[in-house]
Amino acid sequence: MGEIGPAEPWVVREIGLPDELRQAESVFALANGHVGLRGNLDEPEPFGMPGTYLNSLYEHRDLTYPEAGYAFPERTETIIDAPNGKLVTLTVDDEPFDVRTGDLRRHERCLDLRAGTLHREVEWGPVRITSTRLVSFPHPSVAAIRYEVEALDRPVRIRLDSDLLANEEQPEPRDDPRASAVLHAPLRSLSHSDDVLVHRTRRSGITVASSVAHVSEPGEVSAEEDRIRFTLTTVVHPGTPLRLDKFVAYAWGTGDSDDDLAGTAVRDRDEAVRAGFETLLDEQRDYLDDFWDSADVELDGDPEVQQAVRFGLFHVLQAGAQAGPHPIAAKGLTGNGYDGHMLWDTESYVLPVLTYTHPACVGLALRWRHAALPAARERAAELRLAGATYPWRTISGAECSGYWPAGTAALHVNADIADAVLRYAAAAGDDTFVREAGLEILVETARLWCRLAHEDDAGVFHLDGVTGPDEYTALVDDNIYTNLMAQRNLRGAAQYCELFPERARDLGVSADEPRAWQETADNLALPYDNRREVHEQHAGFARLQEWDFASTKDDDYPLMLHYPYLDLYRRQVVKQADLVLAMVLRGDAFTPAEKTRAFEYYEARTVRDSSLSAPAQAVLAAETGYLELAHDYLAEAALLDLRAGGEASGDGLHIAACAGVWMALVQGFGGLRDHDGQLSFAPRLPSHLPRLKFSLRWRYSRLHVTVTPTTVTYAVTDEDLSFHHYGEPVDLKAGTTVTLDLPPVEEKAAPPAPAGRAPARRRDALDR
Amino acid sequence: MGEIGPAEPWVVREIGLPDELRQAESVFALANGHVGLRGNLDEPEPFGMPGTYLNSLYEHRDLTYPEAGYAFPERTETIIDAPNGKLVTLTVDDEPFDVRTGDLRRHERCLDLRAGTLHREVEWGPVRITSTRLVSFPHPSVAAIRYEVEALDRPVRIRLDSDLLANEEQPEPRDDPRASAVLHAPLRSLSHSDDVLVHRTRRSGITVASSVAHVSEPGEVSAEEDRIRFTLTTVVHPGTPLRLDKFVAYAWGTGDSDDDLAGTAVRDRDEAVRAGFETLLDEQRDYLDDFWDSADVELDGDPEVQQAVRFGLFHVLQAGAQAGPHPIAAKGLTGNGYDGHMLWDTESYVLPVLTYTHPACVGLALRWRHAALPAARERAAELRLAGATYPWRTISGAECSGYWPAGTAALHVNADIADAVLRYAAAAGDDTFVREAGLEILVETARLWCRLAHEDDAGVFHLDGVTGPDEYTALVDDNIYTNLMAQRNLRGAAQYCELFPERARDLGVSADEPRAWQETADNLALPYDNRREVHEQHAGFARLQEWDFASTKDDDYPLMLHYPYLDLYRRQVVKQADLVLAMVLRGDAFTPAEKTRAFEYYEARTVRDSSLSAPAQAVLAAETGYLELAHDYLAEAALLDLRAGGEASGDGLHIAACAGVWMALVQGFGGLRDHDGQLSFAPRLPSHLPRLKFSLRWRYSRLHVTVTPTTVTYAVTDEDLSFHHYGEPVDLKAGTTVTLDLPPVEEKAAPPAPAGRAPARRRDALDR
Repeated sequence: MGEIGPAEPWVVREIGLPDELRQAESVFALANGHVGLRGNLDEPEPFGMPGTYLNSLYEHRDLTYPEAGYAFPERTETIIDAPNGKLVTLTVDDEPFDVRTGDLRRHERCLDLRAGTLHREVEWGPVRITSTRLVSFPHPSVAAIRYEVEALDRPVRIRLDSDLLANEEQPEPRDDPRASAVLHAPLRSLSHSDDVLVHRTRRSGITVASSVAHVSEPGEVSAEEDRIRFTLTTVVHPGTPLRLDKFVAYAWGTGDSDDDLAGTAVRDRDEAVRAGFETLLDEQRDYLDDFWDSADVELDGDPEVQQAVRFGLFHVLQAGAQAGPHPIAAKGLTGNGYDGHMLWDTESYVLPVLTYTHPACVGLALRWRHAALPAARERAAELRLAGATYPWRTISGAECSGYWPAGTAALHVNADIADAVLRYAAAAGDDTFVREAGLEILVETARLWCRLAHEDDAGVFHLDGVTGPDEYTALVDDNIYTNLMAQRNLRGAAQYCELFPERARDLGVSADEPRAWQETADNLALPYDNRREVHEQHAGFARLQEWDFASTKDDDYPLMLHYPYLDLYRRQVVKQADLVLAMVLRGDAFTPAEKTRAFEYYEARTVRDSSLSAPAQAVLAAETGYLELAHDYLAEAALLDLRAGGEASGDGLHIAACAGVWMALVQGFGGLRDHDGQLSFAPRLPSHLPRLKFSLRWRYSRLHVTVTPTTVTYAVTDEDLSFHHYGEPVDLKAGTTVTLDLPPVEEKAAPPAPAGRAPARRRDALDR
Repeated sequence: MGEIGPAEPWVVREIGLPDELRQAESVFALANGHVGLRGNLDEPEPFGMPGTYLNSLYEHRDLTYPEAGYAFPERTETIIDAPNGKLVTLTVDDEPFDVRTGDLRRHERCLDLRAGTLHREVEWGPVRITSTRLVSFPHPSVAAIRYEVEALDRPVRIRLDSDLLANEEQPEPRDDPRASAVLHAPLRSLSHSDDVLVHRTRRSGITVASSVAHVSEPGEVSAEEDRIRFTLTTVVHPGTPLRLDKFVAYAWGTGDSDDDLAGTAVRDRDEAVRAGFETLLDEQRDYLDDFWDSADVELDGDPEVQQAVRFGLFHVLQAGAQAGPHPIAAKGLTGNGYDGHMLWDTESYVLPVLTYTHPACVGLALRWRHAALPAARERAAELRLAGATYPWRTISGAECSGYWPAGTAALHVNADIADAVLRYAAAAGDDTFVREAGLEILVETARLWCRLAHEDDAGVFHLDGVTGPDEYTALVDDNIYTNLMAQRNLRGAAQYCELFPERARDLGVSADEPRAWQETADNLALPYDNRREVHEQHAGFARLQEWDFASTKDDDYPLMLHYPYLDLYRRQVVKQADLVLAMVLRGDAFTPAEKTRAFEYYEARTVRDSSLSAPAQAVLAAETGYLELAHDYLAEAALLDLRAGGEASGDGLHIAACAGVWMALVQGFGGLRDHDGQLSFAPRLPSHLPRLKFSLRWRYSRLHVTVTPTTVTYAVTDEDLSFHHYGEPVDLKAGTTVTLDLPPVEEKAAPPAPAGRAPARRRDALDR
């Protein structure tokens, strides 16, 4: 019966009970980057998967290989559940409240994207139950719940058991290697009292203090090692609802820290109690008002996408806002998918959005990468490389990838991090960050590329044996994405060493090093097939055997679950945008004609078995004039977590795809580019979408851009701003506005896609 | 104190106690291909690793991957110990005999290569102990031991406990991924009696019946689930030795077989008892006399190599003689290394030797591959390929490789099997085999290549994304070894379909198929670097970065234990002969000048981190006129297991390297080639080696070839024989001899090898 209701601009509403509990729990997850609560029901049952996450609370797990090799990681890190403070068990006239039993007349949940709350209304038997849950943005360690029970027409006996519960039972992991390896009872109790539990993980040595307080009618508190329970028994009369305000706060850190974690958790909780639930609500809304003011995207003509882009931005904010000094994981704090690891999508998808909408947290995210430099240097030494080699997947900074051809070999992650540093440095103008953290990342990653690059007889430099974003090829020579991003990395490092010469000297950068970086960058191979007149994803790609799409059945996708790598790696079949993503991030390296030819060539070979693909394809489709197709890809990315159904997001949302909706709109239809730190726009909107408006920050300016199919209006506030519009410089004083005509775009039919793999025609859906 | 004594022509003698028990147990292992006993001492302690192996007695073990992929094998097979019948515990005047205690005055063991026995003589305290052990070639299920105790100067009280013991304690596995995963107590007792134990493996469902009988003075027999013990207590007087003859026989099979395995084991044992130990000895010698008559190799001028080539041939025979209907494992039955798996070395190294020396077992070995066709077809279907895809490593025929880039991707194993079929078919003229088994293997492997091959714009066919013999590159395009062997496979399949058209029709070979095979074969890419004028190991190899050998330290070898694949795969560093092996097996595809250039080029880049390398390098060194270098490589291969010391062979002998000694001599100095089923010779012997003599079989002929530095004499017996000598046809009547002059060879200094990796100069060792 349950489903996401019709699109509303600022609310995601679920009407009835969810069909897929795990999926709904991800969609309705609340988080602030520091603490995350999956959208479980208040009562313990039913549930898909519990989920109370503290950023970087993880346990170690051994990795074993049938045939191990040198430098294969011997252990991994797995996100684990913190004590769950969401639980409120209701008993009505001795009958436990369970949505699966009794007389359920109404069940509705709303994720309010401006309030930053999850609100629930239930009518069940003789009572109405409402709950409102938040994970506070301004108070990063705090979550709070208001739980109310109202007697509808007669007095009812009510019992509430409100728990803070450690070591909850977990469901068995699903049979998917990408899902998390769940650890049972990962927490060992150190101490417990009426208002705080202290636990420690068994192997990773992380201590967690969890405190809880209840504001309500008087009740009883009991405490044991893994549980604090507040119990309240009363009779509720019609017109006089029973209210329980529950405040939870966490503090955690490595075992050898001297911090009084229990004291911190209690103090943070007490502060929240003192402020009260209403104040927490108000502060939450203020925080979000400020965010939306410079982050909101409006799209007329497609209400579902309108809703989805805000939903996506909200979850991107939830993943990143208070993440520092910890990483931003691929699933944010919405599930335990990918073991809670962060991957390259953080720097390549999530941080670009936050750089333009909420830059403060980007600096912290990159400072986390800076703090992880010692581990990356150690890994580089272990791999017999130079500089730093960042992990493919990690929580703490240690490499946790168990399949090296699509992990360790994907060295582009290092250039992706450098790219995020360069973007943030340019957009935020944060010189302190560059001096304290950014430059060192640039230098150490440049050293990696310089060590890897190999000059051939003709003076061309090669990066051999690496894996690009497309995981359907691996260990290739001269992956063009990697080479172009490494080029940017090398040049950026040289440029910033020039800008910060003293700091460069401190980092031991010799006079020769930047010259070598420049030379390497200038001579890196960029594979090109002369006969087909198209760039190659890697050297020799266009010579490989074509995939037989005509014989590939629908249920053969995703291909990686039905074909061996042996088959995938040696064919022209692309899992996800690779060269196409390079044409977004390094669009300056291609002519428009080259982009069109390459886009068309790779469209025919890209199957989108990764959610990272559609956003990049949307951007390039827009740039090459395939505006309808761009809308199709935009919609695919936008509806993935919210409306695609099924179990796809059961282990957590695709935060990068959430960010990708913004990318598709702002970089695609808005034409935002930032090559070499230069802000530029080339908007283009299909005629069936009347208006796109987006805002962004650039240093101390805010820019508001309104695009129609024929015009664009730029409005600048706070400070003057210069940028390019279709290659022409535009200088706008703060408080001024300019409206410019857009060049006409001839709408074109989409180029051929692999049989059966074209995205759904969005206009067909809208016309229905 | 202990060591292998000075080289004797027909005996390997150990004087004193071995320093490395595990190593000695491998060297002194006895086997017949069906049953194998490691060379453990008679008494239970001390031991390096027990070892009583029955070919294909294995247990299943789960394979788990940190990140699994489609068609990654989910379980492997591990060789396990059968009940150990070697054990004889001696107590002398209440003191247990242990070589580590008491007065040990003499300890000597002899592996007699003509008698096929391991003989031991010990003087310890008041007694002399002698034992003689054999694993019967003519009675494949039978092992026998004669154990004698002699009082030296006064009567002594003797107790003998002779055991047949199941589920022995095993040492912990060494920390080397190549070693076996030892399974504790793998056998479950089904029944036991005074003379036969019946067990079954827990998961693989193999039933083993082990029977024992003792012929001696009267004693007592006790039996329990895992042990039959014969105990004898007596007083031994000087001049009247106590003798115990112990006979053990095994029968085993899958659990659902209806065979009376216990009955079979008892019957075989009883036959052996009836024959008696002396008769077993006589039959053993007769069998070996016959073998040596057409297999022996004599080399004057290097006694250690002379001994080693016989030692190697003996162990090759021990691995293969009675292996059918089971596989010949990489370690034979001398240890549990590689989990007891067979790999491609069987077809590419071991079977060629047996084809010319003991062809009967080659037909059986290849019939085993034929029996494994259903599994190979199933694997091909799983891998979305066509025809058959044989496993990289296996016992039963199922793929057991846990690292696919150096396992599943090494598809050349299929062509190696086809090559062995073609060689055996030509050399043995066994048409029945071709009809019943060989042709189907050829056809199914040809279908694999035809499916894999991809035609480019220029009409060149490619085999992309495969791994050749050199495991320091992987997933490459157009590995030249693979392409050339696939070419032979395709052409051979077409040719034999023409020779056996009815059988081909039965196999569903259409008229078009052989044409497609021919076309594919004729157009397969053979990478060549025009600038360097040298063939490439794979497309682009010569463009890769060079390895920095100057900075690589001695203890950085083997490189795979000290560098990541990431580093190895993208450089010009070669673990083992690959292109060089192709120039041996497909020498017809290269001109002499191409061979010399390629040999020199790859010599400079080959580190020989595999024992498979030196034999192939020896052969090509001889062919290209580097005769001293050929001798160096010959000696390295020859002395590896016998005199290299250390733990290298502790898990079992390198049977392929044992075969490689013959290769180095007969294909190297003898210049034997068999391209396209045509026997040819081009002998060349360095001036410091006076004489090489070898014998071989070709169909019903035996050929005896005697090479000196200046002449060669061919003597044919049994039947007329035609072959080529330096490209010229020679037709010899049975019983005739011809002596021909050899072209002079200008001795050349060895081409450069990687720093520190040149083989030891054998002449220097001989001159000392």
